[in-house]
Amino acid sequence: MNLLFIGDVVGKPGRHMIDVYLPKLKEKYKPQLTIVNGENAANGRGITEKIYRAFMTAGAQVVTMGNHTWDNKEIFEFIDGAKNLVRPANFPEGTPGKGIVFVNINGVEIAVINLQGRAFLPPLDCPFLKAEELIKEAKKRTPFIFVDFHAEATSEKIAMGYFLDGKATAVVGTHTHVQTADQRILPQGTAYMSDVGMTGPYDGVLGMDSETVLKKFTTALPARFEVAEGREQLSGVFIKADSRTGKAMSIERILINDDHMFIEG
Amino acid sequence: MNLLFIGDVVGKPGRHMIDVYLPKLKEKYKPQLTIVNGENAANGRGITEKIYRAFMTAGAQVVTMGNHTWDNKEIFEFIDGAKNLVRPANFPEGTPGKGIVFVNINGVEIAVINLQGRAFLPPLDCPFLKAEELIKEAKKRTPFIFVDFHAEATSEKIAMGYFLDGKATAVVGTHTHVQTADQRILPQGTAYMSDVGMTGPYDGVLGMDSETVLKKFTTALPARFEVAEGREQLSGVFIKADSRTGKAMSIERILINDDHMFIEG
Amino acid sequence: MNLLFIGDVVGKPGRHMIDVYLPKLKEKYKPQLTIVNGENAANGRGITEKIYRAFMTAGAQVVTMGNHTWDNKEIFEFIDGAKNLVRPANFPEGTPGKGIVFVNINGVEIAVINLQGRAFLPPLDCPFLKAEELIKEAKKRTPFIFVDFHAEATSEKIAMGYFLDGKATAVVGTHTHVQTADQRILPQGTAYMSDVGMTGPYDGVLGMDSETVLKKFTTALPARFEVAEGREQLSGVFIKADSRTGKAMSIERILINDDHMFIEG
Amino acid sequence: MNLLFIGDVVGKPGRHMIDVYLPKLKEKYKPQLTIVNGENAANGRGITEKIYRAFMTAGAQVVTMGNHTWDNKEIFEFIDGAKNLVRPANFPEGTPGKGIVFVNINGVEIAVINLQGRAFLPPLDCPFLKAEELIKEAKKRTPFIFVDFHAEATSEKIAMGYFLDGKATAVVGTHTHVQTADQRILPQGTAYMSDVGMTGPYDGVLGMDSETVLKKFTTALPARFEVAEGREQLSGVFIKADSRTGKAMSIERILINDDHMFIEG
Ligand SMILES: [Fe+2]
Ligand SMILES: [Fe+2]
Ligand SMILES: [Fe+2]
Ligand SMILES: [Fe+2]
Ligand SMILES: [Fe+2]
Ligand SMILES: [Fe+2]
Ligand SMILES: [Fe+2]
Ligand SMILES: [Fe+2]
Repeated sequence: MNLLFIGDVVGKPGRHMIDVYLPKLKEKYKPQLTIVNGENAANGRGITEKIYRAFMTAGAQVVTMGNHTWDNKEIFEFIDGAKNLVRPANFPEGTPGKGIVFVNINGVEIAVINLQGRAFLPPLDCPFLKAEELIKEAKKRTPFIFVDFHAEATSEKIAMGYFLDGKATAVVGTHTHVQTADQRILPQGTAYMSDVGMTGPYDGVLGMDSETVLKKFTTALPARFEVAEGREQLSGVFIKADSRTGKAMSIERILINDDHMFIEG
Repeated sequence: MNLLFIGDVVGKPGRHMIDVYLPKLKEKYKPQLTIVNGENAANGRGITEKIYRAFMTAGAQVVTMGNHTWDNKEIFEFIDGAKNLVRPANFPEGTPGKGIVFVNINGVEIAVINLQGRAFLPPLDCPFLKAEELIKEAKKRTPFIFVDFHAEATSEKIAMGYFLDGKATAVVGTHTHVQTADQRILPQGTAYMSDVGMTGPYDGVLGMDSETVLKKFTTALPARFEVAEGREQLSGVFIKADSRTGKAMSIERILINDDHMFIEG
Repeated sequence: MNLLFIGDVVGKPGRHMIDVYLPKLKEKYKPQLTIVNGENAANGRGITEKIYRAFMTAGAQVVTMGNHTWDNKEIFEFIDGAKNLVRPANFPEGTPGKGIVFVNINGVEIAVINLQGRAFLPPLDCPFLKAEELIKEAKKRTPFIFVDFHAEATSEKIAMGYFLDGKATAVVGTHTHVQTADQRILPQGTAYMSDVGMTGPYDGVLGMDSETVLKKFTTALPARFEVAEGREQLSGVFIKADSRTGKAMSIERILINDDHMFIEG
Repeated sequence: MNLLFIGDVVGKPGRHMIDVYLPKLKEKYKPQLTIVNGENAANGRGITEKIYRAFMTAGAQVVTMGNHTWDNKEIFEFIDGAKNLVRPANFPEGTPGKGIVFVNINGVEIAVINLQGRAFLPPLDCPFLKAEELIKEAKKRTPFIFVDFHAEATSEKIAMGYFLDGKATAVVGTHTHVQTADQRILPQGTAYMSDVGMTGPYDGVLGMDSETVLKKFTTALPARFEVAEGREQLSGVFIKADSRTGKAMSIERILINDDHMFIEG
């Protein structure tokens, strides 16, 4: 059971990278399941129905979100019908959408869970408690459980990795938009990586125009960030899991940009 | 002009890795300058004079610090005499110690600057303004300027990279204790990496015992973190700079742990 | 049904004010129920069993807490047996102690609930949801429900006031240690006040020695705060509720210090 | 030398209260100087030139600001010409506008300083250092120095009070929109009050519609806050200073709403 996960797709440059490289990556890795984090897909802020559908058409089966879930108001209109869109599960009871989805791939079920951290982020329900609860539920149906933990602090992310070690197939982080080099298999068999990184502009700050961001940091004046133009990158991770136990067997970083060329399989 | 930088050394396990691998790394890379971030060297919190001296003996020429600078009270007694210890330069005017040091390596001066970020960290003077000021001063003496930007938020770190692009030889981040995979040469010739990562326990949360950290996240009860035991890792970065212009020519991640064996040069 | 509430008692000076003025206040106001916030009673950090008992002896029936609940480790030993000690109810499931207590005063039950805010404070379960849940439960037993909302942000506090308006007899804030002048009866009959203020040193910063606090703000160096010495103050609030409906009829600020002398009833 | 200060004016309801009560307050108190905090005057967010001029016409001589200074983009066009508009002085060097203004009242100069806190607010230059620097400068021209410290945390505000005690005529806080009851003369003669409170809607959360704010707290969904409608209030403070030394002689809270009727002088 092989999983391909693509980190936070930012605006048009990110979607362009998906269009160009997702087919190549699928050909190279032949994943049974492809997940894309789409919280920044619509101009850096949220997602639209059209983009969600385009991800599906491009070859993804699930789209995960994060703290930018509601940035594009259109989501309130289509989230109920977006079967494979997952937003953080620890949003309050009654929030539109869902935090876990089960996809059926050739008769095999895979659970995908999205959670959001609380360190340096707005208050939410406890992601650890929610993870435990959802995984208990998912375990009844499948040994393949994939968690996108959208969080800022490395401590909270690694803690989640250990918390779910042996319970989930993989726990990968998103949100910081910078890929970390700590991909590994934890002692009990869970694949872990603090942050998958971002898919979008390669020259910019987290995908946004660097001049505007710099102006904000140096002047403390308000600034409206726009998605950066120019070169692009794609960040992802590929995980192989034992087809019987659901335990991870390998985890491989994927980084495509002008400094890291894509190598055909 | 070649520089070796070792990320946040945590407690005894981190010091042990320095003792074992710093000689090997120096033999492999033959750096003119070796810098160690020592803010967590004394049991995870601050540094002692003995440890500072041990780093020097082990082959480092400069020790940088961060938000944990004052955690071990001993520092107030030896910081004035610790010629090559640098603490964040944007601490308030009048703070003990210094934020920039010039080391002379075979007649060539190299400036090492330590700065601390403000996003998700306590208030300080502006690190961008301070960086500009210190680099202006340093430029009069040398084209070799190395910046350890101790910060939490990826946005602030990358912004600093672009801010100093073409002005510093290298801007590398520390503090999150997780190595990032985004090492690169920025357009104007500055080597950049969001976080070098941590040197210390390999099984733990940022170097601390994972069970205690997990207990804290799940119970919200107070917890006293202890440095984790068991396997160890070393995180670093190696930068080659043009010996005339001071511009970076290459930047290479160094990661040594049970999943990434050290390879002799 | 009359309630007297005394805000965050800080260290020895605060306990001294309780000893001196609680009898006088009880004589003046003749409250059926007296509540004391004791989160800073033990040298500014937490509470001991001896102090808890002393509050009871001095005339309180309930002691509420806050973010400093666990500061004095002794609490873990006596909280299970401290029948009338209430700590924030929205601490995670399984936390020692309880967040609601029912006291029986001459055959009449009164519910006292303690909640902690999340704005500018560590992550916890949602205080609004928890409030709703506990008040539903309490309503089955009594119309007299008193809420100590321990929180930092005025927005979160006032929001809680409106959220519980008509459901609780009173919602009073604690934690900022500064008494607010906004005591009022909200439209649906709930007495509200953003912060009751602190009981302890009158010359200091939130009860702590001002020189040390100032040093911390101006130098960014670590500082160990000690309870301030010198003049003292007491901050409280007195609420009258309809003995049948439990709705608040009046709310009166109590402030005793060198600028506001105590006036006998 | 008598000063009248009116706290954060919020939207139309706040401006209405200024129109109705500022003349009455000026008749009652006969202040030499009247200051209005206008950071929320334009629909809750920032200020326009028209509103700034209206405050002047209504009888104010100085308008202070805060963290909402730049919310209404119009300010960038008129701030240079707005002689008596003061924005936080510890904004970065080079920020449009100024942080101190000297007004001449019948041949007597008065300095008005605006500062912004850093606890729970975005990073800025040190307000303590900046205060010290500006007061040193102001002292050469006048003993009458008034400080509006726009800050969130009570600790930072009280610390500023003690820091400037004996150096400024008055240090009053703004920003929390809730009036505190701790007005006093500090030991060295500085009038102090943690927060003057808000001038605007009486039924709402900090001036904004309570239903929307509550929805935000309970659902974690985004919400666009609008200025509340209905009843109104005015919050202010009146300070008398010795006409020779500039030391404060008295400080009086002003609160006008349906629970606190205005009493003619
Ligand atoms: Fe993102
Ligand atoms: Fe995010
Ligand atoms: Fe560190
Ligand atoms: Fe650090
Ligand atoms: Fe307190
Ligand atoms: Fe507190
Ligand atoms: Fe305001
Ligand atoms: Fe404000």
